[in-house]
Amino acid sequence: MHTSIATVCLSGGLTQKLHACAAAGFDGVEIMDSDLTAAYESPEEIRALCARLGLRIEMFQPMRDVEGVDAETFADNLRRAEAKFEVMERLGAELLLLCSNVATATADDDELVAAQLAELADRAAARGIRIAYEALAWGRFVRDYRHAWRIVQLADRPNLGLCLDSFHILSLGLDPAPIEEIDGDRIFFLQLADAPEMELDVLSWSRHHRLFPGEGSFELPAFLGHVLRAGYRGPLSLEVFNDVFRQTDPVATARHAHRSLRWLADRAAVAGGWEQDRLEPLQPPRGVDFVEIAGEDLSDVDRLLQQLGFDFAGEHRSKRVRLWEAGEARIVLNEQHRGSEARLAGIGLRVDDAAAAVRRAGAIGASEAFRWTLEGEQRLRGVEAPDGTQFFWDDRAGRSWRDEFGGGERGAAGLRGWIDHVNVGAGWEHFDEAVLFATSVLGLTAETSSELPGPQGLVRSQVLRTPDGAVRLACNLAPPSAPEMPRHLAIRVEDAAATARLARARGLEFLPIPSNYYDDLEARFALGPERIGELRELGLLYDRDAHGSFVHFYTPTLGGVFLEIVERRGGYPGYGAANAPVRLAAQRG
Amino acid sequence: MHTSIATVCLSGGLTQKLHACAAAGFDGVEIMDSDLTAAYESPEEIRALCARLGLRIEMFQPMRDVEGVDAETFADNLRRAEAKFEVMERLGAELLLLCSNVATATADDDELVAAQLAELADRAAARGIRIAYEALAWGRFVRDYRHAWRIVQLADRPNLGLCLDSFHILSLGLDPAPIEEIDGDRIFFLQLADAPEMELDVLSWSRHHRLFPGEGSFELPAFLGHVLRAGYRGPLSLEVFNDVFRQTDPVATARHAHRSLRWLADRAAVAGGWEQDRLEPLQPPRGVDFVEIAGEDLSDVDRLLQQLGFDFAGEHRSKRVRLWEAGEARIVLNEQHRGSEARLAGIGLRVDDAAAAVRRAGAIGASEAFRWTLEGEQRLRGVEAPDGTQFFWDDRAGRSWRDEFGGGERGAAGLRGWIDHVNVGAGWEHFDEAVLFATSVLGLTAETSSELPGPQGLVRSQVLRTPDGAVRLACNLAPPSAPEMPRHLAIRVEDAAATARLARARGLEFLPIPSNYYDDLEARFALGPERIGELRELGLLYDRDAHGSFVHFYTPTLGGVFLEIVERRGGYPGYGAANAPVRLAAQRG
Repeated sequence: MHTSIATVCLSGGLTQKLHACAAAGFDGVEIMDSDLTAAYESPEEIRALCARLGLRIEMFQPMRDVEGVDAETFADNLRRAEAKFEVMERLGAELLLLCSNVATATADDDELVAAQLAELADRAAARGIRIAYEALAWGRFVRDYRHAWRIVQLADRPNLGLCLDSFHILSLGLDPAPIEEIDGDRIFFLQLADAPEMELDVLSWSRHHRLFPGEGSFELPAFLGHVLRAGYRGPLSLEVFNDVFRQTDPVATARHAHRSLRWLADRAAVAGGWEQDRLEPLQPPRGVDFVEIAGEDLSDVDRLLQQLGFDFAGEHRSKRVRLWEAGEARIVLNEQHRGSEARLAGIGLRVDDAAAAVRRAGAIGASEAFRWTLEGEQRLRGVEAPDGTQFFWDDRAGRSWRDEFGGGERGAAGLRGWIDHVNVGAGWEHFDEAVLFATSVLGLTAETSSELPGPQGLVRSQVLRTPDGAVRLACNLAPPSAPEMPRHLAIRVEDAAATARLARARGLEFLPIPSNYYDDLEARFALGPERIGELRELGLLYDRDAHGSFVHFYTPTLGGVFLEIVERRGGYPGYGAANAPVRLAAQRG
Repeated sequence: MHTSIATVCLSGGLTQKLHACAAAGFDGVEIMDSDLTAAYESPEEIRALCARLGLRIEMFQPMRDVEGVDAETFADNLRRAEAKFEVMERLGAELLLLCSNVATATADDDELVAAQLAELADRAAARGIRIAYEALAWGRFVRDYRHAWRIVQLADRPNLGLCLDSFHILSLGLDPAPIEEIDGDRIFFLQLADAPEMELDVLSWSRHHRLFPGEGSFELPAFLGHVLRAGYRGPLSLEVFNDVFRQTDPVATARHAHRSLRWLADRAAVAGGWEQDRLEPLQPPRGVDFVEIAGEDLSDVDRLLQQLGFDFAGEHRSKRVRLWEAGEARIVLNEQHRGSEARLAGIGLRVDDAAAAVRRAGAIGASEAFRWTLEGEQRLRGVEAPDGTQFFWDDRAGRSWRDEFGGGERGAAGLRGWIDHVNVGAGWEHFDEAVLFATSVLGLTAETSSELPGPQGLVRSQVLRTPDGAVRLACNLAPPSAPEMPRHLAIRVEDAAATARLARARGLEFLPIPSNYYDDLEARFALGPERIGELRELGLLYDRDAHGSFVHFYTPTLGGVFLEIVERRGGYPGYGAANAPVRLAAQRG
């Protein structure tokens, strides 16, 4: 697989973009004319810089609105083209991208368009330049790749071929299967972009909301399969622009972009049944092994866990780390972080083959997480997510890390629990990347995202989970202007009311819930005075759907983290989203 | 005119929202159930707070999805409704908003819907409550206000009427004229929202992109005219939510909201030919009188103006203020601001009646700008725009403020110029408000906005101008994460190349333009080697369209301001937008 990316995907100046592409491991780039025009470096300097960085200039996009025009306009377009051919010679670029005319075309006449493209191609051939013709979804007359292919066949020039762009094909709902009928040698270039499902005009959708492969709704592995079966062997090139990438660090975006191509090539190889470009298989985790909270002084978290009924399960034999347990819920408190307040730092996952998970993560460009261990201690192996949270894999092949903790008393307090879900959060500039990380590295599945009204704007919430629900992460995206939200950890128990009562007796103060909430709850669900009275007294939140019911409450926030206790009855699948506005308002105080 | 606003338009908690509404001068509020549910204050406390603040609770929106359902569901809905009637009694709210069912309706049967609404209305009547039925644009069966009106007529209950919402009617492209055929007494409530033209599904459009009246594309004055001609005499209430208002200070949003209603009532009165609610007439300014740059030390701006060929026209007789002139272009340098770098602080406009402009601005809620003046000096009268820029009006009734400056030498350098346009900028949280300010207070007209690719994201650009082009403001909106952009002032001259040559001879260094830009320019316009050579040598930018041509260049940025020199030939109407990416990249360096 040769990887490429359009410079227009990244923020910054052209040389900065090129350095970012090279650092992320791309083999080549597509350069957009406007990036070159705004650069102080000459085409020769850009060419030499690309050569030093090991980047091929795969394609250059210098002009639009060339074909399907009257003779006079076409003559001027040829003059423009000659000037751009010169720039391409200076750049060392051999492939020119020509998008179907969106503005100046006057003739819906394939013969005329083909004749003009043939003349352009002949001019280009004299300079050793090839032309890739692309049907834009909003082209004046040519919008469908099959139409572009008919025109290319009519023009019949060896240096005139097609550029296929997944966005322009899939956004119009065109069937990609007939791509297989195209001669693969005539597909000169392949541009890839994903996008979320939206009902928006296709130009705005394209300009503001494209995503990297694996982050949207397009079936890109199948799409790529069609192109490869047609015989295409050129680079896989990303052409993705959206409002986030235009604003964020190009180095991070390029790395994120490269990971999406590795993911896509793997998925296409798995779907197509070929060996090339395959990664280690995805391993959906079997469960959450532990959650780690880190900070300089976690004594208030100790107190909170004790009040909730967790057992203190001991201290680590060599590190300033403590373990608390409640049945299957294990919380590790790590005080090795000077000067930091309590934060959700790590999540341990159980998998079948930890070494294979680490290999896959490395191949897909995830940074390995480092934790020092002494001889005889279990080595923690894992990766760092885009938001800095560390994920560790354990296949329990050796002896358990729990044996490294001693001096506590397990099973004394008697609370039985499980990690229900973990809210990992994500800044607005990392949200889509975090989703791709969870699916491509952690093996989780993305549910449809939803929007919750918070007091400082809509919060976009995305759940990532295993099909059996053993592992569930919730990623919440707050508006850019809102302060960073605390993250949280939800413990599932059998009886939330009993847990709340016990915790209250031990002095825990819950997040206070407005009385109006219970009046509304009674209006909605008719729970009866006794049940409402209990919920109100204990400050519990409640939800119900066709599957079952959900009772939950929140602890106060300690530093950057809080806990939620949840009870699920029946098959209630959600997270009490209807209560989120009340919780968010209460946390704001 | 009675003014009202839905609490859901504003960010923050309910009591904070109510204080903001009262401070902005609203007479009443619509309270959304979710705002009450998340509040710690009881309904009685909210009622008492509203009474103290002088806010009527015009309407309460407690439930959805009531009608058009099976008998069992309807029985539960009536139970829910009774609980909500109780909350309304505690709140002292007498009007309940009921939106057409979007989720649970199973029967597209007007008789059934009318019968259920009649039963709900009878229950409500027993409590003295009225019900306003509203057709939502995405209702399951009822989407058109005329359909809702037929159902209300069928139900035939005196306490059952309509709620009309401009968004739900105009977003579907429904004709608002038949509103006049509705009995005005049965229109119980009127909700107003504007919106930009978009091709987006109507639910997302409604949820993310509503605007206050005057900021979008809807013909709201005409819409309001139809409703008033139907005989509606209730409050004009705003129901506007978008991603910006959810995040910004509720006090500022409420003030902005109130201004939009004053504007709308005036426009409707002018269009309808009635006297009530009219403001002083809008006065499109006749020209720019001066532009003021303020800062602690402006000696580098003095030097810049001298290099460009401006005349030093003297010092103010009582203030630390200097005047520079070039023909009709007057720039005032105000050094009375300690500790601030150079910034574009004020703009003087010529109007026919300055006092009337000030009265109109005051009536529409604009803050008056203050500048001290000594006896015998001309008083500066004007207002402050949302971004802090001050606008002053002068009708030249008295003697000119220019006479207060002395000691300079006018006409010596000989540059003749005019203020071509002024870029006033606007933070993302003030953009739409700035547009409404310019149209409703300054009497300018908004052109269609455009988007320019900058190195840190798309910049949305909105030009506001008089029809004759004598006054043109450009408002640029950068992404929230981008640093604040400098503002600029464009001086039109007769020969930009001569001005550039002179300035260069006097030592001015221009913003350096990449050589690649000129290669591209030659490819696009075939200007010939001589002309391209001159542009390249002098660092001039060029653009051309069907009307004429445009030559311009930029000075370096001094503090938060820079100058642009422009030459317009023929009827070129634009601002060289094609060159903006090059300029933005060059300014970033």
